[in-house]
Amino acid sequence: MSFDELTPEPMSYLGQVAYLQLDQFESIARTVSMAPDLASKERLSPAASAALAKHQGVIAEIRRRGAEPDAVMAPFAEAIDRYQRATQGARWHEALLSNHLTAGLLDDFFISLASGLPGDFGPRVASVLAADSGREQIVEMLGEAIAADPVLGSRLAMWGRRLVGDTLLLARSGLSLSGDAASDESRIEPVFTELIAAHTRRMDALGLTA
Amino acid sequence: MSFDELTPEPMSYLGQVAYLQLDQFESIARTVSMAPDLASKERLSPAASAALAKHQGVIAEIRRRGAEPDAVMAPFAEAIDRYQRATQGARWHEALLSNHLTAGLLDDFFISLASGLPGDFGPRVASVLAADSGREQIVEMLGEAIAADPVLGSRLAMWGRRLVGDTLLLARSGLSLSGDAASDESRIEPVFTELIAAHTRRMDALGLTA
Repeated sequence: MSFDELTPEPMSYLGQVAYLQLDQFESIARTVSMAPDLASKERLSPAASAALAKHQGVIAEIRRRGAEPDAVMAPFAEAIDRYQRATQGARWHEALLSNHLTAGLLDDFFISLASGLPGDFGPRVASVLAADSGREQIVEMLGEAIAADPVLGSRLAMWGRRLVGDTLLLARSGLSLSGDAASDESRIEPVFTELIAAHTRRMDALGLTA
Repeated sequence: MSFDELTPEPMSYLGQVAYLQLDQFESIARTVSMAPDLASKERLSPAASAALAKHQGVIAEIRRRGAEPDAVMAPFAEAIDRYQRATQGARWHEALLSNHLTAGLLDDFFISLASGLPGDFGPRVASVLAADSGREQIVEMLGEAIAADPVLGSRLAMWGRRLVGDTLLLARSGLSLSGDAASDESRIEPVFTELIAAHTRRMDALGLTA
């Protein structure tokens, strides 16, 4: 029994990943528009580029397989847009934290699933998703702000918990489940445990209690 | 007498160009959020990437010269933000046209000025700005919509005229003028004539009367 049996068929996989990266880009762009100053705005640009580069890498894969990217992405747009609205965050530091944590969780998740794709195609997509995410400066900005303001830290710790919940629900909805709940759970659980452990390390690195 | 004597000192030049490209990126991201459908959204992503890549290329040049990008960009932020608000466009096709025409005009303008920069630094910046702008699909979307709707075409032709006016005013404000109006004008005029000619070709290619 392995997790990669839950990988959806390739076009569903690619459509979800492509739309999620486009959505990450839009979300980072919204965060840019909330930036309190020019330096902060500038520090978001590597993350915006990286999300777009990943989006374009996945789109290239869709076209290589002879499909139209928008048709392949369309079935996932509504659920992902709803997720995005719920997780954008209304304030600057919340939005920053969302951009960091949701990208981390979702990239890890889809990299785990890539091994269930046929042929050489899984490793190729995994390498697109594993490329540098340009989020170092987001981490720096958050770390500085949290160190300086314990109240902000406790608010962001709560926000981080909300994000992990919403993100794992979205991730789960992308799996191709067998319908046998016990067997599905036993395959999902170890991977989700790892995703949460990586998330907790990201929270710790910011000085936040997961 | 040559135009490149009007090139501002290198840090002013770089600050303007860096902030303009960041602004182009933000503007394209806003246009993405106005897209009527997923395919249109997707077709904007190469232009967003290209603006970010140009921004980052210029930022790298600022750092190479030992300066802080935000300090160098800050003096230009207010005027460029105001320009951006005036030229964003409230409707999808207006916003698309703005993204296309303003990037075309401003890239051409700053490439012309680059020859007045000292050392090997002008050619390096010019090559960053002359890189592919990823706007082919914007042109396609506009061309299709204009061909199908003459009323839209006439509205966009007016919008294009407004854009060229605002953009040339902004461009002019970035020049290092001598204070001798006659001599300044005689240097500016041939370059602005060329910028307008290139703009007119872009309008023609869309089926719009400049």
